[in-house]
Amino acid sequence: MKRAALNRECIAMPTPTDHSRILRVAGAQMGPTQRADSRRHTLDRLIALLEQAAARGAKLVVFPELAFTTFFPRWFFDSTRELDACCERGMPNAAVRPLFDRARALGVGFYVGYGELTDDGRRFNSAILIAPDGSELGKYRKIHLPGSVEPRPGARFQQLEKRYFDYGDLGFPTWRAPATLAGAVLGMLICNDRRWPEAWRVLALRGAELVCIGYNSAAYDPNGGDAENAALRTWHSQLAAQSNAYMNATWAVAVAKAGEEDGAGLIGGSCIVDPNGRIVAEAATLGDEVIVADCDLDACRQGKEKMFNFAAHRRPRWYGPITEQTGAIPPE
Amino acid sequence: MKRAALNRECIAMPTPTDHSRILRVAGAQMGPTQRADSRRHTLDRLIALLEQAAARGAKLVVFPELAFTTFFPRWFFDSTRELDACCERGMPNAAVRPLFDRARALGVGFYVGYGELTDDGRRFNSAILIAPDGSELGKYRKIHLPGSVEPRPGARFQQLEKRYFDYGDLGFPTWRAPATLAGAVLGMLICNDRRWPEAWRVLALRGAELVCIGYNSAAYDPNGGDAENAALRTWHSQLAAQSNAYMNATWAVAVAKAGEEDGAGLIGGSCIVDPNGRIVAEAATLGDEVIVADCDLDACRQGKEKMFNFAAHRRPRWYGPITEQTGAIPPE
Repeated sequence: MKRAALNRECIAMPTPTDHSRILRVAGAQMGPTQRADSRRHTLDRLIALLEQAAARGAKLVVFPELAFTTFFPRWFFDSTRELDACCERGMPNAAVRPLFDRARALGVGFYVGYGELTDDGRRFNSAILIAPDGSELGKYRKIHLPGSVEPRPGARFQQLEKRYFDYGDLGFPTWRAPATLAGAVLGMLICNDRRWPEAWRVLALRGAELVCIGYNSAAYDPNGGDAENAALRTWHSQLAAQSNAYMNATWAVAVAKAGEEDGAGLIGGSCIVDPNGRIVAEAATLGDEVIVADCDLDACRQGKEKMFNFAAHRRPRWYGPITEQTGAIPPE
Repeated sequence: MKRAALNRECIAMPTPTDHSRILRVAGAQMGPTQRADSRRHTLDRLIALLEQAAARGAKLVVFPELAFTTFFPRWFFDSTRELDACCERGMPNAAVRPLFDRARALGVGFYVGYGELTDDGRRFNSAILIAPDGSELGKYRKIHLPGSVEPRPGARFQQLEKRYFDYGDLGFPTWRAPATLAGAVLGMLICNDRRWPEAWRVLALRGAELVCIGYNSAAYDPNGGDAENAALRTWHSQLAAQSNAYMNATWAVAVAKAGEEDGAGLIGGSCIVDPNGRIVAEAATLGDEVIVADCDLDACRQGKEKMFNFAAHRRPRWYGPITEQTGAIPPE
């Protein structure tokens, strides 16, 4: 409500003229996926969301992180058998192929997050970008893994991404999409990556015009003793997407898996953000829900050519500590 | 109003316990300073704001960028005589000393922005940080200079920071303040710097707990033909302060020179932001106005030790382009 008021107050942008650079994008927020849910049931939900998005004219659909399963890093698995069952060998494999087939039939591209199991037994928290013709545009492996390697003793709920996944090893690439996606320069992030301005900046240095993000973010500490409530956490999630979209003059599509999942709460707040940082579409529920916006890629130009003209205004000479050190070193 | 509602909704932080780490900070927003105003008149306004802040118990007062003069880079000067008259030789010099004397007498530290003229004739857009005992804690020279070197032909209003000033050559240092300022780790930015996440990140990598920022930001294009109105520009300013405070787990005090100055409009929106990115104090006017907040420096710890624990979660290996390239290089 407050955001809608702000948007009304602020919008004073020129109307777009080159329609070939307008890409209709959907965010396909998912409600919770319980551990007991069948793979096929979950896949049918993704396909239903895809069809809703296509019916509304979307050419690119963004699904959440780890979209085919529950957020399994909350569980400590004794063996890798159960863990590997949450991951995908090869993509698309037979279990997820119906989604890929339906998207190609509808002429819709998509981003989807999944647990990747490589032939040599490594696991990554990954996302792929599929073009409307079914070809793979690119893959991204999550770099900012939160959580811990060792389980927290006595805690019912864990956050074991650092245990189950290797750190992403593909950097932060961008891709020039085909004309069916308006030739957009696309980048991908996954969940916690969106809170790290370095990730956005590398994408923007590679020309990103639209950044796709799926996430599973806790609404509260499921083990209790929390200092942050769901309203603050949802606001933080949107603040990160809005500010980084603005400071990098890019569109952003940030999409949640939301709601009460296996007894742990996940925030919603999925949104599509313009290069001014304004939310132009936002989920209203914590369930399966499609949001749609027309993203004028040329609306990035004002920022990229003026305020955030990197070539004119960045001063890398003074940015050294960003790559030279990892942790903070306060003065004595 | 909308922000106040948001803040009420979101605040669920533990109450502070260590009162020695609570620093009462003031933002001393200034209304416009016309080119015709006398230096002494302007200085008296700063002193009046300082006294108001001290009366409200503030120990650190943040003044705007180029606080002693109008925002003179909007004017094209034929000779350096008029330009140099807008700058300070030595600090404090006789013209500004009454502010320094009054602050020491009141036991209040401050940040103030000014045009710096060095002995060898260089100019910088600078800020200094003065401790409550009158000693100089540090100096900062603006790194992200906006505007152009060459005047825009035929335009009444210019933005000639790149012409008049050298790029800052002191990097982004932080300083450990004395006990009279709660031992805070302080950093400084100036105006446009606040929109560049690299600047904040370097400060946070050096332990910043409170970042002082003065600014003069256009409310609209004074030459006409604008795509951004004052509401959007004010919102951008606060979005940058809020998000970077959150992503770096630091307090921020962002202070405007505001209002109609020499026929050109400047935004207000001065604010004090907590490490969760929430505005805890905000100017209501476009004139001379003091805002005050108690900044619990230990409130930075939750962010610095968990979500934004740099040592645990940053991945500098993938941040290379941030220092290796200046401009954007999109894919073909």
